[in-house]
Amino acid sequence: MESAISTLVTHFKTFAGKDGSSSTLSREEFRSLVASQLPTFVKNSSDPGVIDQLMGSLDENNDGELTFPEFWQLIGKLACKHGGFSQ
Amino acid sequence: MESAISTLVTHFKTFAGKDGSSSTLSREEFRSLVASQLPTFVKNSSDPGVIDQLMGSLDENNDGELTFPEFWQLIGKLACKHGGFSQ
Repeated sequence: MESAISTLVTHFKTFAGKDGSSSTLSREEFRSLVASQLPTFVKNSSDPGVIDQLMGSLDENNDGELTFPEFWQLIGKLACKHGGFSQ
Repeated sequence: MESAISTLVTHFKTFAGKDGSSSTLSREEFRSLVASQLPTFVKNSSDPGVIDQLMGSLDENNDGELTFPEFWQLIGKLACKHGGFSQ
């Protein structure tokens, strides 16, 4: 499990680091991560509306950036859906 | 990322399924998962007090069982610590 957790952390940092600050994901970094890393779990990610809706539901402090804990909520929802667990 | 998420879901189900219900972790299943899957991220997991404290902090509805979303909170905290992110 530890390597799977490290994989998720490493990918977050890779995409978050594109615009200098590697501790948050901008909307573009988030779009690029979802499109390349979550092609099956997030349908129609090429639709800007899907990204806006996801980002809006996660960006708790509405600063246009996703912190790791905010991002982790999305991964948790996807994991719940993938595992067939109620949320 | 998707395979890492699947790994976490699969491991949860493997340990949760030991006592029949594969949708929640009993305390013993949780202890066994932490000891074998999170040996580096959770220090002193052989100490029952560590498991009790973790379980207590996660088991939001205090039913002695951890649902996947409750368990996901722990993984998120460990991922934050591992990634050096503030929580």
